[in-house]
Amino acid sequence: MDGAAKAAHELAIVPEGMIADLLTRDAAFDAVEKVFAAMAAGDAYNFPVVREAIGHEDALYGFKGGFDRAGGVLGLKAGGYWPHNLDRRGLINHQSTVFLFDADSGRVKAMVGGNLLTALRTAAASSVSIKHLARKDAKVLGMIGAGHQAKFQLRAALETHAFERVIGWNMHPEMLPGLAQVADEMGLPFEAVDLPGLRDADVIITITSSFAPSLMAEHVSPGTHLACMGTDTKGKQEVEAALLARATVFTDEVAQSVTIGEAQHAIGAGLIGEGDVSQVGAVINATHPGRTSADEITLFDGTGVGLQDLAVASAIVDVAVARGIATVVPV
Amino acid sequence: MDGAAKAAHELAIVPEGMIADLLTRDAAFDAVEKVFAAMAAGDAYNFPVVREAIGHEDALYGFKGGFDRAGGVLGLKAGGYWPHNLDRRGLINHQSTVFLFDADSGRVKAMVGGNLLTALRTAAASSVSIKHLARKDAKVLGMIGAGHQAKFQLRAALETHAFERVIGWNMHPEMLPGLAQVADEMGLPFEAVDLPGLRDADVIITITSSFAPSLMAEHVSPGTHLACMGTDTKGKQEVEAALLARATVFTDEVAQSVTIGEAQHAIGAGLIGEGDVSQVGAVINATHPGRTSADEITLFDGTGVGLQDLAVASAIVDVAVARGIATVVPV
Repeated sequence: MDGAAKAAHELAIVPEGMIADLLTRDAAFDAVEKVFAAMAAGDAYNFPVVREAIGHEDALYGFKGGFDRAGGVLGLKAGGYWPHNLDRRGLINHQSTVFLFDADSGRVKAMVGGNLLTALRTAAASSVSIKHLARKDAKVLGMIGAGHQAKFQLRAALETHAFERVIGWNMHPEMLPGLAQVADEMGLPFEAVDLPGLRDADVIITITSSFAPSLMAEHVSPGTHLACMGTDTKGKQEVEAALLARATVFTDEVAQSVTIGEAQHAIGAGLIGEGDVSQVGAVINATHPGRTSADEITLFDGTGVGLQDLAVASAIVDVAVARGIATVVPV
Repeated sequence: MDGAAKAAHELAIVPEGMIADLLTRDAAFDAVEKVFAAMAAGDAYNFPVVREAIGHEDALYGFKGGFDRAGGVLGLKAGGYWPHNLDRRGLINHQSTVFLFDADSGRVKAMVGGNLLTALRTAAASSVSIKHLARKDAKVLGMIGAGHQAKFQLRAALETHAFERVIGWNMHPEMLPGLAQVADEMGLPFEAVDLPGLRDADVIITITSSFAPSLMAEHVSPGTHLACMGTDTKGKQEVEAALLARATVFTDEVAQSVTIGEAQHAIGAGLIGEGDVSQVGAVINATHPGRTSADEITLFDGTGVGLQDLAVASAIVDVAVARGIATVVPV
């Protein structure tokens, strides 16, 4: 207590409403690329995930923590999914907050609104995979899914690579104009296609909450890079398992990929083994060759890890503190 | 994002330095007693504990979360043990912070310094067990252990029950004057004893970080209540396993008691089964008879659960907000 009394310190708070002005897609991309590299180098690791159906408001709540020794970033994202928020309270259903701790002393040092941050770090992950795994001459971007997160994915992908055209499919085609608008903002044509139409795509991003595959192996041409971003739970599935057997498979974290990610089905069916799934960070670090031919299908299984949240939150705090706009409170 | 923008809300912060003035032992006792009752009634539960040796500063870091549906309390304590804090930084080695969330919406609503709070909630747990399990005519309190936390335990016990005398043993007897001082403050005599001397005690609190038992079954008289508060990790042990076979065993949470609590050894040796360990909350709720004779030995295995932290933190926030002294920040 003596120690605590004499050692009041400061907490930097960056509220949700400030994130849009502070976090550029470039900064999110850089933070996620760096932390994927640190994970593959063994300098950063994620803690076991806690995820609980709390039996109230049908909410899922939990914690994703981690430590990046290279970046000195320690903490967690806490929050979850409150499915009735929008209807009952006019709030978005995904609610989360990131807390950062001083790795030298264990004291809390920052709190960052996690809602927009989560959307941008998820979009950054597929973009990182596109930079490191797609063909340099890729021209057509295909989208599966057209919800809220799909627009973040599309914007980030179009800023990462010089695509010439966007095509898209969604279970509910009436939502596709949302994607067309984003493409238009970026000066690109958009075309709604049926699933076989995805054969024209050089890169495909899947971002749905599906429990059955929509994209089949026959819908994917040789040389395509896929970023499967929607599967983060046992049972969810976006693409046919056979596609993973045909592809060179990468992920953010192998342990999640093979249990709750898109790879769970190909693993379960014995089509691939855990050893067939590589960290995308190894490609960033050049310890894995990545794509080795123009005909190779590459697939990134983006499951989402706490370290992405921490890395992006840490970058936000640095900017907010440097600009003097964080709320700083003695604690 | 529209939802987030239009729905800025407030975070209440109660810094560590404010806790000593806000948290009475009575309030800690009431909060812990209530949440033990809620746990036994199935209205409150703890999440899986995350505890990581992060490979930096020899620190242990993690999260203890839970949800008390009855009290509407949701959140976690984050932090851990930084063994070099005192030497290197003049800070206490145990560092933690409690975060509370709105169970209806998933938004963060409070942050509370967790250091003193942890000491007081741990002391409150043994006191709750003394109130509900010790003989009403208990006169002599025995202490095993004389460190920082032992003083908290002693103070809380002396406020809970009208003891007439305190006796104590510690591996390092030169620390016992710390206990004598607390007893003296409460107007009671203190006597240092050897382990067989503990046979005079009606209630014994063990609060050490030992990996081998010091208190043996032969040191404990019929009718004694024991509160074993030090064992929270695989391998730690304060009392001889045979003592648990002779006692009626209670705990805060059975799953922790039998794996990382004092009961792990008696369970491992086959002396008792998991079914022999009952929740102290069941005694509070009168669904378990508790002590049934003056000769019965009762033993409370206090392992420490996240819900204790959340309950006490929630009570602190209520008081701080009511008095208008919490730091309130829009987030």
